[in-house]
Parts: sequence; C-alpha cells; structure tokens
Amino acid sequence: MTIRIGILVFDGMTMLDASGPAEVFNLADPARHHYDLVFISPAGGRVLSSSGMELGQTLAADEAGEVDTLLVAGGAQLPEGRINEELLTSVASLASGAQRVTSVCTGAFILAELGYLDGRRATTHWRHAHTLATRHPRVTVEPDIIHVRDGRYLTSAGISAGIDLALAMVEEDLGVEIARETARELVMFMHRPGGQTQFSTALSTPPVQNGVLRALMDAVLANPADEHTSTSMAATAGVSVRHLNRMFQAEAATTPARWLERVRVDAARALVLDGHSMTQVAQLSGFGSDETLRRAFARQLDTTPTSFRDRFSTTTRD
Amino acid sequence: MTIRIGILVFDGMTMLDASGPAEVFNLADPARHHYDLVFISPAGGRVLSSSGMELGQTLAADEAGEVDTLLVAGGAQLPEGRINEELLTSVASLASGAQRVTSVCTGAFILAELGYLDGRRATTHWRHAHTLATRHPRVTVEPDIIHVRDGRYLTSAGISAGIDLALAMVEEDLGVEIARETARELVMFMHRPGGQTQFSTALSTPPVQNGVLRALMDAVLANPADEHTSTSMAATAGVSVRHLNRMFQAEAATTPARWLERVRVDAARALVLDGHSMTQVAQLSGFGSDETLRRAFARQLDTTPTSFRDRFSTTTRD
Repeated sequence: MTIRIGILVFDGMTMLDASGPAEVFNLADPARHHYDLVFISPAGGRVLSSSGMELGQTLAADEAGEVDTLLVAGGAQLPEGRINEELLTSVASLASGAQRVTSVCTGAFILAELGYLDGRRATTHWRHAHTLATRHPRVTVEPDIIHVRDGRYLTSAGISAGIDLALAMVEEDLGVEIARETARELVMFMHRPGGQTQFSTALSTPPVQNGVLRALMDAVLANPADEHTSTSMAATAGVSVRHLNRMFQAEAATTPARWLERVRVDAARALVLDGHSMTQVAQLSGFGSDETLRRAFARQLDTTPTSFRDRFSTTTRD
Repeated sequence: MTIRIGILVFDGMTMLDASGPAEVFNLADPARHHYDLVFISPAGGRVLSSSGMELGQTLAADEAGEVDTLLVAGGAQLPEGRINEELLTSVASLASGAQRVTSVCTGAFILAELGYLDGRRATTHWRHAHTLATRHPRVTVEPDIIHVRDGRYLTSAGISAGIDLALAMVEEDLGVEIARETARELVMFMHRPGGQTQFSTALSTPPVQNGVLRALMDAVLANPADEHTSTSMAATAGVSVRHLNRMFQAEAATTPARWLERVRVDAARALVLDGHSMTQVAQLSGFGSDETLRRAFARQLDTTPTSFRDRFSTTTRD
C-alpha cells in the first residue's frame, strides 16, 4: 500500500525542512514505492524558499486531494507574528483527512495556531520554544527533544531534525530494518546522542518576569563559580529559602539547585569550547571537580564534556 | 567581501546534496550577506531531482559567470556509467575560474572524470567508494571519512555529509564562531562522532579478485567466532604465512589480523543491533571479552558498542 505524503511548502519557508524529509521518504526501500510524495502550497505553482532555492512546481492545496500524512515545513516568519490566513486554511483542509499531521521546526506554530496541539506535547526549534509556549499556553512545549508524537501529531525540533522525524515515520510504517537502511544511505544516525539543549544555551535560561528573582539570577549568572547555596541565594534575594523555592518553581519550573547546575553547565560549555582543560573548566564554572562536571553534563546534556568538545569545537578532527 | 557559490544541479540529482549546503550558507551570519548563492545547471531553467522535487529556476552554465566556489551535487546515475558530456563541460568551465571546487556524495565521480582528483585524496558515498577507486586508480579514495580537502578540491561523503562539508567551508571562510552558530541554528553537530564505516559494513569488506584469498575469506566470514590466527588461516589457504601476508597486502591493503578484526566487528555490529548483551556479542563475534570488543569498536568505528547501539537500533529512545 502506498502512503501519500503531502509536503506543505510556502514562500519564505526553510527549504531543508522539506527537502530533508523528502529525501528520507524517497530513499526508503525505493524499489517498492511505499511513498507517494506530493508538494503542495496554498496557491500552487512556484514557491521561493528563504535560501533562494525555488521549488518549480507545487499543487494548489484545494486541488491536491487527500493525503495520508501531512508534513508542514517551517519558516522564519512563522514565530514573528500573525500567520497568513491562506496558509492556515490550506493546512486545516489537508489535515482534516490525514492520519498523521506533522511539522518540522517552526511549522509547529501553524499546528498550534489551528489548536491542534492544545493539551498535547510538542516541540519546535530551540530558539522559538519559549515563544511557542507563551503564545499557546495550552501546548506542553518540550524544548529539549528532537521529535515527539502525541496522538496523530508529530512535531520535530529545528531544521535538520526533520530528517530524524521522517526516519521515525519510516520506522513506524516499514519497520526498523528499512529505517536503518535509509539512514545508512543518507549517512545519518537513526538516533543521535542528546537533545536540543546541546545546541542551545538559551534553552537552559528561560526568561523570568519576577524582579526579585531576576536580580538574584543576574547576580549568580555574573559569577557562577562563586560558592552558591539555596541559603546564600535566599539571603541575596532577601527572602526565606521556602519562598525562594516557590519563586523558582513558579517562574522557572525548577529548584534553585537545579537552576544553578544549569547555569554552571552553560558556563562550562563555553569554557570547554574555549579550549580549557577539563580541570580548569570544572574550577572556573563552579563544579569544583572533574567528576562533578562530568555528572552534570551527563544529566543535562546526555553527553560527556570531551564528546561535547569534539562535536562542537571545529568541523575537522585534530 | 561576498563569496559567490555556484551550486551545480542537474536532472536526476539528489536534492539534499544541494539543499543541505545551500541552507548552511544561507544561515551563516545572514545579516552580513557573506555568501551569494547561485543555482546552475547545464542548460538552465527547471531541474527535476530524483525525489520529484523540482528546482524552478537555474542559470545556464555558460551564462552563470565566474564563481568563487563550485559545489557539484551527486546523483544515483553518476557511478553507473558514462557521465553526460554536457554535465562534464559545465563543471569544467565553472571550475576553471573557481578558487574552490567541491563535491557532495557521488558528485566526486564528475570531478574524477575530469581528472581533477588524480594524485589527490578524495571521498564519496560509502556505497560507491570502491567503484570510484577502481574506475580512477590515480585517485586516493578515502572511504571512511566525512569530508577531505586536497588543494582546492574538497569532496564529501554520502548525502547528508554535504552539510558537514559546507560547515567546514564556513569555518574556513568566517571562523569557528560563525560556523558553530550556523550548526546550532541547523541543529547539526559541527563534527560528528565517527566516519562512514559506522554506516557501512560494505566498507569493511572490499571485493577481492584472487581466488585462493577469496575462498579463505569466505571460510572465515562464515564462522568469524571460530579460533582464527595467521597460522591457521595460512593453513586453510594452503600457503605460507609470509605469502598470506603478501596476498592480504596486495588485495585488501591490510594484514590478516586486521582484516579478521574487521570481519568480527562487522559480525558484532549486527549482533549489537539484534539486541544481544555485550557479553553475548563478544562471545558470538569471536572477540572473547567485552574489553576486547570495546577496543576493536574504538579502533575501527571510533565509538563504543553501547553508543553504536543507541544511534542505530531505533529512532526513539527507550
């Protein structure tokens, strides 16, 4: 049985959000023709992506017919304000008959705007996770994840994560062997180490409204290596430890100790990439020992400081 | 100064080979407009990729003018036989004025056909590395590498490796900070763990012409867990140990012991993905102990058995 996949594209979209998944479906056991790919845009015809690559031919949404799976690409304009009405209408009409409705990167803003993600878990590009959560408070945004499924909805993280999402769909449809063969053909991992936090310091420090808490956080952020404890932080803020805990829970959905660890991991990431030795990094970020540093990296980034350095310090191996 | 990048595309090409790098250049410090991307094809106009995605508008090669960097995409037809004359002429004319000539995936077959890679190191998709080396014996093909530079020529491994290649160019042109920022935006690693061997069992077992050696290899491949040594293998082949060494060197560019380790790592990879425990894997693949297994994985795949399992066994984490 052929699965009809509609890839919804539009002017200003990020081409890789669409072309990455398209290549996955194209290379999944191609002799058996499991997938029928159609490129659809609100008005049909040519579509100009943000990189200047132009898609030559697309079907108009109201002429495309039904699709089994709808995949909505992202675009830099989507988190910036009101989403084009025609785009919303196109997605709504295509989604109505689809068994699976999926988004890559900021494409999640379209699904959220249509209310599809209310009461559900979803993800998007790390840079826009906070905006998505603020604009759509009924959506449970999971910023540190590559892709997530909730009911018929699958959303994925930033740009290249669309490839991971498509591989997950191939595994679901055709089994792990064909998904693995497809990943090998693409020279992609099936499951890569770590979540989006690895790529983003922003994820670890959500914005905070409360002025007292903000001032305390700024003080700690300025000197993460100083000796900080719940008691010392409460004293700095001029509140009780119990009240400090409550403020952290309400504004940052975490505990003071856990937040402090995040801040120190952020500092350590920068120090690792600057080429410091692990011992220096441990000292300068406030972890004290190499072992404490390693444990915090494992907990927060699902990796080791050395592996993190290898992946992010340069494109070439020494 | 703006760097003009010409991306050479053609009917039947793999779209991700072109769209991946295009997205990298597009997202590299975009406010400063460091890169000017142009899409070029032999005849200009529309180009149809293998996934059915159609590029709407391309410049004709003889009207495109000079480019600073030429990037040649790959396509499944390139390793299969004679390469279209018009395609070769287009690449030759664009390459003549370029400071940097690069290929993604099977695009290396075009550069090799033009003689550019003679006497140089180069890479391509793991599936076609042996064909490239056989067809162009003056090229030093490095199958187990993501991308390699030799003089003005940069070649990269299969499909998604074009993104790694483009990140390396951004690092070269604009420095490590901008390259890192671009990778974070794309949610890609700057430098991913391991080479192409991770994706390919084929890479570890090159075809062999010599009948005696072939028969010996088949016997070992059938039972890699048996006790094998140079002496036992020489006895099976009916030759001296010295002659066995010479045959392996001539036909497989390695030693009997090293080849045996490769075969066992191949067997171990399959066992790991089948869900066996590490101790079982070590026994069944002939390594004996977990520690020997781990050391062989580190040497040959630049990873651990556990990490290999996590990356390749499924798209979802348990």
